[in-house]
Amino acid sequence: MTSNWLLEPCRAPDASIESAARTRQATLTKPPGSLGALEAAAIRLAALQHTTQPSVDRAWISIFAGDHGVAEEGVSAFPQAVTGEMLRNFAGGGAAISVLARELGATLEVVNLGTVNDPGEIAGVRRAIIARSTANFCRQPAMTALQLPVALEAGAHSVATAQAGGVQIFIGGEMGIANTTAASALGCALLNLPPTSLSGAGTGLDTGGIARKAQVIARALALHEGATTALEQLRCLGGFEIAALTGAYIAAAQAGLPVLVDGFISTVAALAAVRINPACRDWLLFAHCSQEHGHARVLAALDAEPLLDLGLRLGEGSGAAIALPLLRLACALHNRMATFEQAGVSEA
Amino acid sequence: MTSNWLLEPCRAPDASIESAARTRQATLTKPPGSLGALEAAAIRLAALQHTTQPSVDRAWISIFAGDHGVAEEGVSAFPQAVTGEMLRNFAGGGAAISVLARELGATLEVVNLGTVNDPGEIAGVRRAIIARSTANFCRQPAMTALQLPVALEAGAHSVATAQAGGVQIFIGGEMGIANTTAASALGCALLNLPPTSLSGAGTGLDTGGIARKAQVIARALALHEGATTALEQLRCLGGFEIAALTGAYIAAAQAGLPVLVDGFISTVAALAAVRINPACRDWLLFAHCSQEHGHARVLAALDAEPLLDLGLRLGEGSGAAIALPLLRLACALHNRMATFEQAGVSEA
Repeated sequence: MTSNWLLEPCRAPDASIESAARTRQATLTKPPGSLGALEAAAIRLAALQHTTQPSVDRAWISIFAGDHGVAEEGVSAFPQAVTGEMLRNFAGGGAAISVLARELGATLEVVNLGTVNDPGEIAGVRRAIIARSTANFCRQPAMTALQLPVALEAGAHSVATAQAGGVQIFIGGEMGIANTTAASALGCALLNLPPTSLSGAGTGLDTGGIARKAQVIARALALHEGATTALEQLRCLGGFEIAALTGAYIAAAQAGLPVLVDGFISTVAALAAVRINPACRDWLLFAHCSQEHGHARVLAALDAEPLLDLGLRLGEGSGAAIALPLLRLACALHNRMATFEQAGVSEA
Repeated sequence: MTSNWLLEPCRAPDASIESAARTRQATLTKPPGSLGALEAAAIRLAALQHTTQPSVDRAWISIFAGDHGVAEEGVSAFPQAVTGEMLRNFAGGGAAISVLARELGATLEVVNLGTVNDPGEIAGVRRAIIARSTANFCRQPAMTALQLPVALEAGAHSVATAQAGGVQIFIGGEMGIANTTAASALGCALLNLPPTSLSGAGTGLDTGGIARKAQVIARALALHEGATTALEQLRCLGGFEIAALTGAYIAAAQAGLPVLVDGFISTVAALAAVRINPACRDWLLFAHCSQEHGHARVLAALDAEPLLDLGLRLGEGSGAAIALPLLRLACALHNRMATFEQAGVSEA
């Protein structure tokens, strides 16, 4: 398997529809610009969906789960068994993202890319096992040259399934004990930043734990300083679920499917995607700035203006799901408000 | 009519249910605290609604419209006729809040408290006319001693109707050309601030317009400096719709109905309510920080932490309606997520 598809062109937003949507916003019965970020979101979705009536009613959420070799360095507040245990919880309906998907009427796909505590076949979980975990990237590359393309392709596969089902927006989520460590290391490599700049509390480390995590990241960055392309940095420092998100984001942009990006780990995957295929940036909307230290910095590197800032730090795609109603309301307002002329209301 | 009812006690939140809700949040399958502001909102709603299963599915939105004598000072980008014209648009379904109410399945009540361009009887608009407008508060008090209690009572009437219908949350909105000028003047009086500190662009003034608006507010503050109680300041500097919101917020707190406060004008009305009956503060949740200059300052005076910051500046209750899905998802997560024990997931 090769990853040549990653460099295929992305679909282009429609500039004339964007212009028409902007004009329409100015005719609706409200002071121009008074719906702020919701006006911008509706105009953007119109351009991406090539329609003057944008909609994100039909939403798809894929959760990619995978374990991390670096967990053996003691970088997480939770035991590694939780990754596999949470697969059951996602499929069983008890996890945050499961509740959110139901409330939102979104399709939820759960993908097991490889877990140490493998729950085996579970109804509602797609098995796409690459290995029981990545390697400890303090000792060797996280993924082999054969594993990375499979992880990237797993994300693209989800996008193809979503697209075939006629969905209007793609949300990716992740689960994997120690994956903020991987995302921080990858983010530091992509942005050439020191380890402390992106090393945060994850699921709940204290100050000492965060310092030890930064030391682990420093060792990894030193070991893999020869990795200079985004793809190599992703292979050496990423994770199966992070690579799947990167592949999904690029595939979505190529397919013309807008993406709502979740939290810190997803944003680092998005940064990798943009470094690999810059044109995919157009297709990425950002849901929120999380409480995870470093998220704001990675968002800034992407020139992203997220919708929410609620102190979230859960992952699983939950922040993106929580932001989805805002996009739905933005579309409803754009499509269904009366114009000044229609309503017989005087203009400024 | 008197306003003695304003000082009646507010219902008390249930501290033991608040504690139980906080405990439950810590048992759900997520890192403790990782749902940020949504955890706090669910716990708060549980305490207010006196139930371990809070819900804001049944929502009520009242839009209060009224004209302002101070409009003759040229403080708005829109002509005064728009207040009456927008009443038709609210009832006709074309306004932002009309679209939002439909999307959210919320009940929308539209109340005409007095408009210069009176549309007369319209299906879907409750007529509660106090006068065709307030007086120009640069020359005399905005309301007479007879008018203020009627405006306050109009808000309480809406709350009583909402409560009788079994709703779970109350949203108030406002419409009235020149009402950011009234809200700014009232806010300055309540907080003892200079006019420029709360004088903003409203529906779209330029820099010169904002400066002229501040001068109008300065004249009003000088004329009414003898008004030292919140109720007198509301009478001299407020508006029919602002007083109705103040009355509604206090009545909701007395009835035990949580409130989601909208933008700048609503927040000033909330500040007046808290100054009149401080215990009502417990019942006020704040939806967003708007783009209107001064809103952040009034929010800070209320120690409010709004959910959203989207650059909104429309009013009509629209920002509160846009935030409602976040509260609904907060309740769903609180009520429906699995605990670590239920899901068989290991803890930290």
